[in-house]
Amino acid sequence: VSGQHPEAVSIALDAMGGDHSPEAIVEGVRLLEPEFSGTLFLVGQEEAIRRCGPLPRGAQIVPCEQVVSMHEPPSVALRKKRDSSVARAVQLVKEGRARAVISAGNTGAFMAFSATTLGRLKGIQRPAIATLIPTLKEPCILIDVGANVDCRPDFLLDFAIMGKIYVEKVLGRRDPSVGLLSIGQEEGKGNELTQAAKPLLERAPLRFVGNVEGRDIPQGRVDVVVCDGFVGNVILKFGEGLCEMIFLQLKEEYHRLKSQTGPNWQQQDVFGRLMASTDYSEYGGAPLLGVNGNCIVCHGTSTPKAIANAIRSACRTIEFGVNPTIEEMIRTVRKEEGIEGKQ
Amino acid sequence: VSGQHPEAVSIALDAMGGDHSPEAIVEGVRLLEPEFSGTLFLVGQEEAIRRCGPLPRGAQIVPCEQVVSMHEPPSVALRKKRDSSVARAVQLVKEGRARAVISAGNTGAFMAFSATTLGRLKGIQRPAIATLIPTLKEPCILIDVGANVDCRPDFLLDFAIMGKIYVEKVLGRRDPSVGLLSIGQEEGKGNELTQAAKPLLERAPLRFVGNVEGRDIPQGRVDVVVCDGFVGNVILKFGEGLCEMIFLQLKEEYHRLKSQTGPNWQQQDVFGRLMASTDYSEYGGAPLLGVNGNCIVCHGTSTPKAIANAIRSACRTIEFGVNPTIEEMIRTVRKEEGIEGKQ
Repeated sequence: VSGQHPEAVSIALDAMGGDHSPEAIVEGVRLLEPEFSGTLFLVGQEEAIRRCGPLPRGAQIVPCEQVVSMHEPPSVALRKKRDSSVARAVQLVKEGRARAVISAGNTGAFMAFSATTLGRLKGIQRPAIATLIPTLKEPCILIDVGANVDCRPDFLLDFAIMGKIYVEKVLGRRDPSVGLLSIGQEEGKGNELTQAAKPLLERAPLRFVGNVEGRDIPQGRVDVVVCDGFVGNVILKFGEGLCEMIFLQLKEEYHRLKSQTGPNWQQQDVFGRLMASTDYSEYGGAPLLGVNGNCIVCHGTSTPKAIANAIRSACRTIEFGVNPTIEEMIRTVRKEEGIEGKQ
Repeated sequence: VSGQHPEAVSIALDAMGGDHSPEAIVEGVRLLEPEFSGTLFLVGQEEAIRRCGPLPRGAQIVPCEQVVSMHEPPSVALRKKRDSSVARAVQLVKEGRARAVISAGNTGAFMAFSATTLGRLKGIQRPAIATLIPTLKEPCILIDVGANVDCRPDFLLDFAIMGKIYVEKVLGRRDPSVGLLSIGQEEGKGNELTQAAKPLLERAPLRFVGNVEGRDIPQGRVDVVVCDGFVGNVILKFGEGLCEMIFLQLKEEYHRLKSQTGPNWQQQDVFGRLMASTDYSEYGGAPLLGVNGNCIVCHGTSTPKAIANAIRSACRTIEFGVNPTIEEMIRTVRKEEGIEGKQ
């Protein structure tokens, strides 16, 4: 949905995925009623979806019985849950009935169904999950946050390219800067993986600023932070936990203050603004990039607002051609590498 | 310094290390005057140290001319700065004149001089840096935070043992719990390193609770969080940056509030308590464990209070025999492994 005149696209939603499903999913769709003119497929158990009230305009139920639970191993889901809401939602993209798929359910199962059903974009070796992270400036994206725990250096180059294009197209930033997450900015710093990846990033047609440290992420030093999925996932979860901790302490302090000064000041506002600025779920889901389809991973705790934001992100991903642009850039990079190789 | 009756130990301080040296170092020593009855060697440029006012009781200057700068490569410092304040401070431990050494300077150079001058504890393969991290409960320790960027699985076992003993002895917690930092608690989750390290930790005489996720760190789920030094360093720096970001935003909100409600509420107190609870430097330095000597790494930005706390930590490390206990436990573990191997 770009501005006020969205394309009439079709998007598939895993209505059963997430801690508050199907309510949060249906309510998220309802929030979009005023602006969305396409079709939203709610894939899942019909009765449960109907219990969430009258269907929002543009919504259609695609009934199926199975549900993948949050902690089910993806390999088991792949074998035994081919009629699950997430599998069927992905299938709608494969069949061309939907242009994007969104799930707040089991991330591993969503990735597994997406990768096996849709395949990879041409030239991409491994799909990766990109997540928006709040910073002192504009949010940056961190890629990968969990799709690939052990990476080769050339995977990180793919992540950098996919991240750059996502930020350019979906966040609308010109020539975004890219940093390689490491433990020191000096030459020769880092582990084996980042030391081997750095020259690949330096040679690529990217605005690569070199190594960035953990501290540079919230400082907003770069638009795209590249790392392996183990490091990215640990950071993401640690950041969520740390924000929760600080807000809990803040709440206690506020209660103490309130008892001293009375309730005459606007406590709610302060909280709302602060928490929103660090609330990852506000940002509208994390794209699984590199898959031949538009897949948006949402946090299990997604609120209706987060689901609505994810649908908006999906629309921009489609409208601005993220996937064709990734394929085009990867082709160019591979061609240049080939020429370099011959010289 | 345990309670009110400290041992009369000798400790060497790199007076020239850190962003606010030598002032912060000398002032830190001064803060300890009322409680410390041992000797504190201030190693560095005599004139600069003297300019910080009269020497605190118990302090002695050990003059030397060279200083290792914050961004000097450790390998260069090792070759060219053998008369530097950090090298000479470490040397005092080697000579038996000091029982511990503290530096807020270039961490890499401090590690390099410590490892080469003092050697490793018997049975330890790689020294590691442990850092206290604030949590919703008591602080936990994260080990390693930067000494070893690429680790073998058996290094992680050593880290776990050293971390457990440090928490037991210096923080005084009985039978501390140990977690392996990974990206999911289920069996089979993690990268190659953590998957290979897990069975080693399970077999060791530790209260090992299995994998923990990034979010579990600030939740305070375990006393000791084990990870490789790349991941640990990235997390540590990210956490520092995130806290800075939130406090900057908080400050803006406070100023907004203050203009609405007047200055009648105790703004300073709230800030002080909150920031102290997440201020890593308050915790008194990070021990470099596994070296045959007591070495405490301080943050470059250390305040006098942080330096004083580091001296207190050093005293407890000595008094409660952290190093002999580590050697004893490593010997036991290796012996059990040997027996297991034969069966």
